[in-house]
Amino acid sequence: MPYQNNITQLFNIQYPIIQAGMIWASGWRLAAAVSNAGGLGLIGAGSMYPDVLKEHIQKCKAATNKPFGVNIPLLYPDIDKHIQTIIDEKVPIVFTSAGNPKVWTKTLQDKGIVVVHVVSSSLFAQKAEAAGCNAVVAEGFEAGGHNGREETTTMVLIPQVRDAVKTPVIAAGGIATGKQMLAAMVLGANGVQIGSRFICTPEASSHQNFKDAIMQSKEGDTMLSMKKTVPVRLLKNDFYNTIKTAENNGASEEQLKEILGRGRAKKGMFEGDLDEGELEVGQVSSMIKEMKPAVAIVQEIWNEFEEEKSRVSEL
Amino acid sequence: MPYQNNITQLFNIQYPIIQAGMIWASGWRLAAAVSNAGGLGLIGAGSMYPDVLKEHIQKCKAATNKPFGVNIPLLYPDIDKHIQTIIDEKVPIVFTSAGNPKVWTKTLQDKGIVVVHVVSSSLFAQKAEAAGCNAVVAEGFEAGGHNGREETTTMVLIPQVRDAVKTPVIAAGGIATGKQMLAAMVLGANGVQIGSRFICTPEASSHQNFKDAIMQSKEGDTMLSMKKTVPVRLLKNDFYNTIKTAENNGASEEQLKEILGRGRAKKGMFEGDLDEGELEVGQVSSMIKEMKPAVAIVQEIWNEFEEEKSRVSEL
Repeated sequence: MPYQNNITQLFNIQYPIIQAGMIWASGWRLAAAVSNAGGLGLIGAGSMYPDVLKEHIQKCKAATNKPFGVNIPLLYPDIDKHIQTIIDEKVPIVFTSAGNPKVWTKTLQDKGIVVVHVVSSSLFAQKAEAAGCNAVVAEGFEAGGHNGREETTTMVLIPQVRDAVKTPVIAAGGIATGKQMLAAMVLGANGVQIGSRFICTPEASSHQNFKDAIMQSKEGDTMLSMKKTVPVRLLKNDFYNTIKTAENNGASEEQLKEILGRGRAKKGMFEGDLDEGELEVGQVSSMIKEMKPAVAIVQEIWNEFEEEKSRVSEL
Repeated sequence: MPYQNNITQLFNIQYPIIQAGMIWASGWRLAAAVSNAGGLGLIGAGSMYPDVLKEHIQKCKAATNKPFGVNIPLLYPDIDKHIQTIIDEKVPIVFTSAGNPKVWTKTLQDKGIVVVHVVSSSLFAQKAEAAGCNAVVAEGFEAGGHNGREETTTMVLIPQVRDAVKTPVIAAGGIATGKQMLAAMVLGANGVQIGSRFICTPEASSHQNFKDAIMQSKEGDTMLSMKKTVPVRLLKNDFYNTIKTAENNGASEEQLKEILGRGRAKKGMFEGDLDEGELEVGQVSSMIKEMKPAVAIVQEIWNEFEEEKSRVSEL
């Protein structure tokens, strides 16, 4: 009997393993590879112009006949164009984040699209459920990139979100192995969203310098930064240190935005400037030691999950 | 067959559930109640004068014939007096924290005392193992009170500490239920240390105002604070806000220490001043809704742990 639960059924996939939509990392190659491996691949639309997104969706459809999705930050300036592209191209699944799920959920669902919203608290999970979302991703403090203000960790967040909503819950933040996946499921999740681990794949469009920096990183090398603007978890580098010094000296939101400027994320993660670029990655960075094809990662996580499940009686 | 693993054997206890030594909370009443319930109770010596500690140890011995322990922060000014009291009173188990485990471990072990050190990273775990400690507590970012600088969460910390050392590993931070206990064990822990949940017991010596504040708290109501001095997780209140404002304006370590002053922890947690006192508690605070005797907490956590274990095959 193939594995089934409410997440595999919702997305019509083999394993409840979702690859997070990540800017400058998850284009069509990574998304298609994860979907072909039996998980759910997501194209990260946050770093794409509307015509670039269209191209990635079309290439993804050509590269897999399995379900895949697109992640859109709802604060994206040209959001209506992204939404139209997704509808025109009949993308089956959309993950939304960073914004109000009320605005677009129904529009998308009316076209038969499954909508999942990313939240960082039980309160936001309830709002997503009230907006009609088909599931929520509950993302803990340890996750890479943009992050909630309450800093609730996956261990504490998942049981509370589980109790707060009836929709399926996907855990994110701090998950890169089958053991961590099983821990998240024990806490009440129905599936997991994994970001950082999938950056160190040949299929991720991230610059090799960034992939290497992740594989060389150690515990404590990522930190939640820029809390006066939008909190973001970054790998420590010169840019991070500049921000931290400014913060320690009481820099205002405006001053931090000025230091940030524009294009830092692209510069770091896509162009490989490890000093001045913004390097978004989760705390699990220190657990990632080698490059692997996405299919091998999905299979290893799933095998470890099943193996650990069978050994729980020994605990 | 009664449950056994390397932690129950090390401490000669029934369940691998340790009640954290907490200042102004865990005196002899709480420690004895937890030990009598089959866990391991710890007297928190960090807020006690040497003669007060002696009295608590003697009362604890009178109240239980089960093993119990004492937690000492190694930076305690009169540490040598505490160590002498522990040796004189033949306390069987000592948990040390906040300092170098090399200094006292052998002295205590030569008297037949089991020594466990609290760490916040794999590197510190390796140092504790090299110092000869019998086990380590690996404590994540979500834990209450004093906390590591790297901010690694339990989900990410435990698997890495597990791989880094051979000694038994006790997980701490974000654990208040049997599900969270099982998640921690799946991640590689051999036991759990639980703090905050045991504050809301009749046996804890904390002020009722503080217990009530925990039971009324919501997600996001605790935050890691005072990172320029010694990071500490606090329940938000007027004092926390004063510190936060000062930090946002670039206050120096000296300025923060001046605002902190002396006696804030006692004022908040023991005397019940919810506005101006320091209220140390973990992120699980928002999951604690009612007072219960310590024995009921131990039993509930253990029962849920066993029940969830038996249901893992359904995940």
